[in-house]
Amino acid sequence: MTKRKIRMGMVGGGRGAFIGAVHRMAAQLDGQIELVCGAFSADPAKSRASGADLFLPGDRVYDSYAEMFAREQAIPADERMACVAIVTPNHMHVPVAKLALEHGFHVICDKPLAFTLQEARALAALVRKSGLIFALTHNYTGYPMVREAREIVRSGQLGKIRKIVAEYPQGWLASLLESTGQKQADWRTDPKRAGASCCIGDIGTHAENLAEYITGLRIESVCADLTTFVKGRKLDDDGSVLLRFTGGARGILSASQISINDENALAIRVYGEKGGIEWHQEEPNTLLLKWPDRPRQILRTGGGYGYLSAAALKATRLPAGHPEGYIEAFANLYRSFASAVALAQAGKRVPAAALDFPTVEDGVRGMAFIETVVKSAISKQKWTKMPAL
Amino acid sequence: MTKRKIRMGMVGGGRGAFIGAVHRMAAQLDGQIELVCGAFSADPAKSRASGADLFLPGDRVYDSYAEMFAREQAIPADERMACVAIVTPNHMHVPVAKLALEHGFHVICDKPLAFTLQEARALAALVRKSGLIFALTHNYTGYPMVREAREIVRSGQLGKIRKIVAEYPQGWLASLLESTGQKQADWRTDPKRAGASCCIGDIGTHAENLAEYITGLRIESVCADLTTFVKGRKLDDDGSVLLRFTGGARGILSASQISINDENALAIRVYGEKGGIEWHQEEPNTLLLKWPDRPRQILRTGGGYGYLSAAALKATRLPAGHPEGYIEAFANLYRSFASAVALAQAGKRVPAAALDFPTVEDGVRGMAFIETVVKSAISKQKWTKMPAL
Amino acid sequence: MTKRKIRMGMVGGGRGAFIGAVHRMAAQLDGQIELVCGAFSADPAKSRASGADLFLPGDRVYDSYAEMFAREQAIPADERMACVAIVTPNHMHVPVAKLALEHGFHVICDKPLAFTLQEARALAALVRKSGLIFALTHNYTGYPMVREAREIVRSGQLGKIRKIVAEYPQGWLASLLESTGQKQADWRTDPKRAGASCCIGDIGTHAENLAEYITGLRIESVCADLTTFVKGRKLDDDGSVLLRFTGGARGILSASQISINDENALAIRVYGEKGGIEWHQEEPNTLLLKWPDRPRQILRTGGGYGYLSAAALKATRLPAGHPEGYIEAFANLYRSFASAVALAQAGKRVPAAALDFPTVEDGVRGMAFIETVVKSAISKQKWTKMPAL
Amino acid sequence: MTKRKIRMGMVGGGRGAFIGAVHRMAAQLDGQIELVCGAFSADPAKSRASGADLFLPGDRVYDSYAEMFAREQAIPADERMACVAIVTPNHMHVPVAKLALEHGFHVICDKPLAFTLQEARALAALVRKSGLIFALTHNYTGYPMVREAREIVRSGQLGKIRKIVAEYPQGWLASLLESTGQKQADWRTDPKRAGASCCIGDIGTHAENLAEYITGLRIESVCADLTTFVKGRKLDDDGSVLLRFTGGARGILSASQISINDENALAIRVYGEKGGIEWHQEEPNTLLLKWPDRPRQILRTGGGYGYLSAAALKATRLPAGHPEGYIEAFANLYRSFASAVALAQAGKRVPAAALDFPTVEDGVRGMAFIETVVKSAISKQKWTKMPAL
Repeated sequence: MTKRKIRMGMVGGGRGAFIGAVHRMAAQLDGQIELVCGAFSADPAKSRASGADLFLPGDRVYDSYAEMFAREQAIPADERMACVAIVTPNHMHVPVAKLALEHGFHVICDKPLAFTLQEARALAALVRKSGLIFALTHNYTGYPMVREAREIVRSGQLGKIRKIVAEYPQGWLASLLESTGQKQADWRTDPKRAGASCCIGDIGTHAENLAEYITGLRIESVCADLTTFVKGRKLDDDGSVLLRFTGGARGILSASQISINDENALAIRVYGEKGGIEWHQEEPNTLLLKWPDRPRQILRTGGGYGYLSAAALKATRLPAGHPEGYIEAFANLYRSFASAVALAQAGKRVPAAALDFPTVEDGVRGMAFIETVVKSAISKQKWTKMPAL
Repeated sequence: MTKRKIRMGMVGGGRGAFIGAVHRMAAQLDGQIELVCGAFSADPAKSRASGADLFLPGDRVYDSYAEMFAREQAIPADERMACVAIVTPNHMHVPVAKLALEHGFHVICDKPLAFTLQEARALAALVRKSGLIFALTHNYTGYPMVREAREIVRSGQLGKIRKIVAEYPQGWLASLLESTGQKQADWRTDPKRAGASCCIGDIGTHAENLAEYITGLRIESVCADLTTFVKGRKLDDDGSVLLRFTGGARGILSASQISINDENALAIRVYGEKGGIEWHQEEPNTLLLKWPDRPRQILRTGGGYGYLSAAALKATRLPAGHPEGYIEAFANLYRSFASAVALAQAGKRVPAAALDFPTVEDGVRGMAFIETVVKSAISKQKWTKMPAL
Repeated sequence: MTKRKIRMGMVGGGRGAFIGAVHRMAAQLDGQIELVCGAFSADPAKSRASGADLFLPGDRVYDSYAEMFAREQAIPADERMACVAIVTPNHMHVPVAKLALEHGFHVICDKPLAFTLQEARALAALVRKSGLIFALTHNYTGYPMVREAREIVRSGQLGKIRKIVAEYPQGWLASLLESTGQKQADWRTDPKRAGASCCIGDIGTHAENLAEYITGLRIESVCADLTTFVKGRKLDDDGSVLLRFTGGARGILSASQISINDENALAIRVYGEKGGIEWHQEEPNTLLLKWPDRPRQILRTGGGYGYLSAAALKATRLPAGHPEGYIEAFANLYRSFASAVALAQAGKRVPAAALDFPTVEDGVRGMAFIETVVKSAISKQKWTKMPAL
Repeated sequence: MTKRKIRMGMVGGGRGAFIGAVHRMAAQLDGQIELVCGAFSADPAKSRASGADLFLPGDRVYDSYAEMFAREQAIPADERMACVAIVTPNHMHVPVAKLALEHGFHVICDKPLAFTLQEARALAALVRKSGLIFALTHNYTGYPMVREAREIVRSGQLGKIRKIVAEYPQGWLASLLESTGQKQADWRTDPKRAGASCCIGDIGTHAENLAEYITGLRIESVCADLTTFVKGRKLDDDGSVLLRFTGGARGILSASQISINDENALAIRVYGEKGGIEWHQEEPNTLLLKWPDRPRQILRTGGGYGYLSAAALKATRLPAGHPEGYIEAFANLYRSFASAVALAQAGKRVPAAALDFPTVEDGVRGMAFIETVVKSAISKQKWTKMPAL
């Protein structure tokens, strides 16, 4: 019998959306997932037009996510969607995810997980109870060299970690773009849809997640300075945060949306007692290794040299020198998600190692980070502790 | 009525192949093309196993390309494949393409086009006669910044072109890899499957194609030094070629497979009377512009700044700073190919502008280049002319 | 009559010293300054051996700086030293400078200016009263592209400044180097010779000075986290500081001596409402300009293009592409210092514009910064104000 | 008794000259050499004005080099110049050097050595006969990382050398600059002063010298394409040369003065059977090492890591991360020259190892290269052999 692709629906991501298109490309890249249905917009006409663009039959394009979940549930098991990608603005993540889980669908959801930490915690409880697969697309963890970095840190090659510098400068919100109706800017700067923070919520959490993903350390307390530089804007567009990690490591996390002409310059440097690493998202196939007594090394994706870890190799599709980019990294999360869903569909136990993607727990941590940073920003005390999770 | 995806078959690209997997990812990235059948290997068992890996139903996986073309032709028009991707070693390109065209299938074929120039010319004649779409995957032309470079040169901003330096160093064949049974090395170094040249045929043609694509100039004569550095190898693994272009421009083309630790470092520099450009495949989202009296400029993919040409914008999917790579560039050829096939399927005239990919004519030029370089390499005369085409 | 070079003495900088040799190379590079005497070490034998290395006659090499100042004063005016370079550990800067000024010698002194802020203020008062020239070698301000950056910011091209990110990672103190007797590490980590801070005093002040030099803004308050990562060390070896500037700009200043394999990676990024700049000390001949709607520009030292400011051109000696480095930048301070001393020797008024180097006032600011950061580091309050100066 | 500095005279290098000022900075950087006299221009008034600029007493500034040599010879040995720097246009190198040697002065001379190969050979014979020190300022050999590269190649770490790619693109002669009276362009493009070639003579020889210096290999035959792109120019402004080395290595040498906005981008890549190296003059403190099975390594000047060779360490003055540039590299030749002259002055034998700079023999090879390339450029035969030397 022919193996079947994983059938996926989508909520959000209609015409003009950025991240919805990314999710679709990432999902389809490896040919394991098939988009079978969608509720692409709160506007039914737009949803239908978007579905047609995507070659979907009209009867699998829905006017609302609630309708989609209800009607898909009624389709025979071997045809209905098995999972759903949630690519809406932040405030809708939890309501949609909750309903999907309640209808028995596995979920892959964009970040940040929720609108508030409280909401996030409730969702996490629901996921645990449901036994369903839940992936959160902190997509930068999908890069091969991020995985290599994690292996290097965790293997102890760098010794005990002392310092982490994570930065994420962007410049696209250096003027009041939301006043022009630009869709991406519009919802990200709107407290009703984005949540308590723009800059920290949208990109600061990526930096936070990356720092914890690579080092395995946990942020213990923060000291934050948030700023809204652009007049008329309702949320922060720049944030600088001093970090203290459990175990004694220190750090700096800097995120900015007003750093003109910086594009998507997420970067991380980690220094231990024995060595350091450095990685830049805009040059993602390179990882720098730093040693006190040996020349700096340039590690590269692609398997030809024989030095990469299995974790990095698993995440690289092409020989060295054939640039793999943002979509490929994103697709690595989808590939692992699809494998986990396939196991679940087959009725097999899904081992922890198969959850090779950020989970709802990472999402809860991200929400805790956002709330703690916002709290710190208005505090006169230097340090604000992260809540117990 | 629901729009349908373009249905595609594949010849070659079974388990262990590199370029076949690339073609599939490129074809599927944008969700416009559906792989419906294949003859993935000359070994029927391997073909079937490969088809199963790809979620194809058993009855659409064939034991041979001849069988595939015959049987697909018999399937109703709205289900059978419309086009075929040819991803075999070089010597099979023409036989497969010829049969595909004779059965009325559009073709997208890996490069170099043929085994010999003569064969290439015959195929070009057949394509012209057939009225079918034929694309050749000189994939580096799919990068947004290559397209931007072409627009800049053609707009005259650089003035009359004086000098072109194209280089393509790789290091993966620095030892006798073919003796280990490594599949990629095996056929590329075998005169019976690769043709008259390894290094020039496999990668030198990419550099030649890129130089002509960007500048619109044509190579008039060459002076080549080909070398086989690795003992026991049957074909060249390094080539240096002086170039003279029609109109007076000069150039250097350097290709190498023994440049240890150089990965896939295709790069091109073009200098005119008023300015210059520089592009590196391994950092593909950047294009350098050089001026005599102004600071050097760094152009970047992604549309936010407002300075990119329509041709570049059409080839970029993500905002600036979100790296697009090899697969995305490759997918740009597939996207244009799919659009042209869709027009043809709809019975519409396919305008020249829609053939936004390298064609069979580029393939003939590539074969002429290979043969002329090989001829020059054994000549004592400095210059060897390219044949009239 | 033949013009004469400026005659200079030196205090400190004996065999094995780093910065003394740099000062001598910088002073001599342009052939305007002649080293005529010195008290190179507190150890008279070492002082004499060092003087002989430097081709000085024995009677101009002194056992102590006090002896030097007294005896040089007794030499006829057209032979005695006119100025003195102070290149001792920090705690000696003020005593030596004070005595030099009291003997009528112009002074060029390494940074930080003093051991304490109080001491620095007293010295500044003495300088003002003396009417003598006093230069402080915050040498990074001597780079052509730092001067270009200042011109660009001050011309208003970037608009109102919003954010400044200054960082200075080094890795050379990642282990307890001072325990090996290494001279540089020994005094820099000793509170009795270095002062209240190692990392902030030695390199953090350079970053602070650079930020204020380029932008003209003044730090208003700081929030600091200082750490001593290496066990057994007596002073900080890492510091992260949030900054608030007068007028509303925000910033981050990061200095580290435990960032393994980072060498001397001072870098600064400045973002305004209209554009930004970025400069890296290790690639000093390049300045990046960032715009919201135009390609990023790469400015380069060397005058051939016609776009550099007069201030930058004055500081560059070679055509573009001929790397100018650390010594040349340092020499730019010496060149301006020599010109000012020549004016003063000729009995002319020295206009403010001729003081084209950091002055004693910059030194006072640096000491205030060090003390404020140290104070902030032990405070539980988020923000600590800089003192009025 | 006080050690004395080496006393040096200079021929050429008057006001407005580029390379003369470089020689003076390089000579003075380390404080071992003292400029005591000069004949700075064929125009006596200009010579005197230049001497005054340089703080020289009027009686040591001469109207002609012949006068200088004659009158300096008459000065007591412990005051007269010991050596002379020749920084004139090419056609004067040999006449001046010849006369200097005949008067018993050691010589340091800019490149290329001579106007013709024949002249160069005669000069070499004279040098050998004289027993005097003769240095040729192929200054790029003075960079620490070039010396490290040589050590690496010669130690056999790269295995047998297969391929050398040396390039030297500049853009400053992309228009007819000589028509504006620009002094540098004027003589370099004048066959009467520059010799048989502009581009190959001025910069191509640097690339040739660097290739042979690093690898120890000798060019056996060349295949050249020289072009004069700028209308009205009398000599070549661009050259591309295929190289064959004794022992079987192949190479490409590309030099250009019309590559707009390329500054002084001399670069070399050397590939052997076991590894490769890459060095760029514009980023001179970095050397890349390439391996087939290990990560690429970044070697850096400055001695802190413990991995550099003694030869490289000897040529580096500063800790890692403190950029050393063009002048420092140039000064390394002067430092070695001064040491050799000091030995000779002291009546000691100067061992071969002390001649740690390019010699008259390198100059003869350079002239042979220029003449062979010019000959090849007008030949219809592919290969032209280098003459026996």
